[in-house]
This record gives sequence, structure tokens and C-alpha cells, in this order.
Amino acid sequence: MTVATPTLTAYVEFASTYSYLAVMRLEEEAARAGVTVRWRPFLLGPIFKAQGWETSPFNLYPAKGRHMWRDMARRCAARGLALTRPDPFPVNGLLAARVATAIADTGERARGIRALFAAEFAEGRDIADPAVVAAVLEGVGLDGTALAARAADPAVKAALRQATDDAIGHGVFGAPSFVTADGELFWGDDRLEDALAWAAGTAVRPGRPQGA
Amino acid sequence: MTVATPTLTAYVEFASTYSYLAVMRLEEEAARAGVTVRWRPFLLGPIFKAQGWETSPFNLYPAKGRHMWRDMARRCAARGLALTRPDPFPVNGLLAARVATAIADTGERARGIRALFAAEFAEGRDIADPAVVAAVLEGVGLDGTALAARAADPAVKAALRQATDDAIGHGVFGAPSFVTADGELFWGDDRLEDALAWAAGTAVRPGRPQGA
Repeated sequence: MTVATPTLTAYVEFASTYSYLAVMRLEEEAARAGVTVRWRPFLLGPIFKAQGWETSPFNLYPAKGRHMWRDMARRCAARGLALTRPDPFPVNGLLAARVATAIADTGERARGIRALFAAEFAEGRDIADPAVVAAVLEGVGLDGTALAARAADPAVKAALRQATDDAIGHGVFGAPSFVTADGELFWGDDRLEDALAWAAGTAVRPGRPQGA
Repeated sequence: MTVATPTLTAYVEFASTYSYLAVMRLEEEAARAGVTVRWRPFLLGPIFKAQGWETSPFNLYPAKGRHMWRDMARRCAARGLALTRPDPFPVNGLLAARVATAIADTGERARGIRALFAAEFAEGRDIADPAVVAAVLEGVGLDGTALAARAADPAVKAALRQATDDAIGHGVFGAPSFVTADGELFWGDDRLEDALAWAAGTAVRPGRPQGA
């Protein structure tokens, strides 16, 4: 008899600062929890537009934005991660999301996504540029040129649209977001541990009678 | 020679769900970190209104609101806290904020604030009602009737306005928020540990050279 490994779907958006924090530790934390990650790049833009936002809430609400950048600096310092503020912010993550979607192999997709986030947020490279995307992927042993070209593939475009639609269907409104096999939604790098515990079946679940 | 105990200013808003989470553990966590809490009830309403919000963002953005309530249920279950959804939500916290501001003694203020949050979010009582506020405070050994009457005192009203202005001056945009003696701002129950570590001088601080 084989027992299925618990899985957790990770919705990540390349423009999202807190997605960077989560992406850089996700594989390690998931391995520790005995959970397999299903990586789904998606786009927040259509979700934000539907609620009337034309840019990141961190730009729309300056006090929130100032706290976010300071919080990122603190968290990155504590985790030993470099942080460079992308300029412009937010980056247009469409190309990177399509290219990451085009990577079929799970392990390769994880590696590619992590390399692209590090290029953007640690090194300040422009991941909206196809040449940069190709070079970053080549740097982690993937066929960057072929993958960058696949961004124009209608099937890849459709798959990314499907990921965004699926995210919306699960109630996603920000990034990163994590969805368990039983549909439980967790938002933010701050909820990664909770999401993994839920996926692994070790979380305290609400709704039981008081005192049970 | 006396060494001053580190302090942390806690800005809490009675309508705020995540303030409830923080308030119920703040004294214990602060004691463990060797930090003294300076309690400052404030009002988010004027801050939200200034950015065009007439109600809680959890009402304005339904997907965000649905996640918040589920997240609260999960966190409360994990911490052994009861949770009742206030109706209407958000409560008008003006009266409770004024009354809490009127409590001069630090220990009594902490006790009063905690009792009011528990009445609202654990028991579902209406803390916009002066009789309820008085009864809740009496229940923890305070002179609830006299304190409830002090909500109309112009000096108390002015002190609460000052707390809100000070919060804005520190960059506060949500609740709970924590501000250290050196002006570092931390937003959310999720950042309580970070704020206490910063106040206690044990946090990793950003801005040092790479690799230092």
C-alpha cells in the first residue's frame, strides 16, 4: 500500500515582495513538514484591477508601503537574505509567470522560480526582460532560451490564466497564498507554517466544541 | 545605577480582530521578553477615512474578509481562545477607547483593555453600550460606572485624539501596531515577537553591510 504524500499548492506572484520571502524557504520548510509543493505562478493584476486597484496596494497606501519595505529589510536581515528594491516597483511579472508556467518538471520549476525571485529581489535584475529571464534560468541549468520563447505559446498563456482563475476560485486575494488539498486557504509568508501543518494533518482545526 | 526597562508602545483598536489576538497574549509575551508595555488605545476610523475607506477593509474587500474570519478561527482554536463574530462588524469602538484612555494606572488599564476585548470577541457583548462597558470593568475590579462616565470628559477625548495623532506620526496604518522607543514600527499580531525583540535589543537589525 502506498500513502500519498500531502501536497500544498503555492500561488506565487513575481511582483510580490512577500512571495520572495516564502519562495526562498518553501522547499526546505515543506521537506521538513513532509509536504510536496505544487508551484502555481499566477497574476495578482487582474484580481487587484477587479477591486479598482491599478497598482500595488503598497504604492496606493504609502504608510502601508513604508512599513512593508522596512519589514522586508528586517525579515531579510534576520534570514540572511539580500534585498534590493526593484525599480520600478512592482515589476511586470507577466513574462516570468508565463515562463515559469512553461517549466513542466516540478523540481525544475521550483528551481527556476527561486532563481527568478532571487534575481529580482536579491540582485535587482529586470525579470520583465526576456534576455534576463533566459540568462537566469541558464544559470540554474535550465534551457532558458527555449523556455523564454515558450512565453508566447498560447497553451502556456492559457495555463497561466487558468492558474489565476483557480486562485480566484479558492478565494485568493494576495500573494503568496497557499491552498491545501481540502481547500483551506492561507495568505502570506507568515502563514506558511500553518499551511504546511494543515496539509500534513498536524494543525489544530477550528470548529470543534468548546473544551473538546 | 538603575537600568531602564525597555518599553514597547502598543496601539490597539477595539474594532480590530487582530488586536484581540495580540491583547490576549501581550502582557505574558512582554514579561517573557523583559519589556514593559505602554498601552495606547487609538482609533483607526480617521486613518481609514483619510484614505477613502468608510468601513473596515475586511468589509470592503470580501475575499480578504473571508480569509480573515477563517484565519481568526484557526488562530483562536490554536491558542485556546473563544471567538464570536461581533454583529455589527466592525463595532464602534469610540466609547471603549475613551474609557480605556481614562484608566490612569498602567496595570488597571491593561486589565480593563483585555476584559473589554474578551467581552467583545469571546462573548459577543456590545462594547458600544455604556452599561456593558461599565459592567465589564466592574467584573475585573475597576470602578466601571465612574470610568464610563469619564468618556465624556473633554480631557479624555483630547487624550484619545492625541493617541491617534501620535499613531499617525509613527506611520501607523492598521492595528495592532507596536512602536519601540527608537521609533521602529511593527504592524500586526504576527509581528509582536519581532517588536518585543527589537525593544529588548535582541533583534537582528537591517542595514549592516552584506556578510557582516
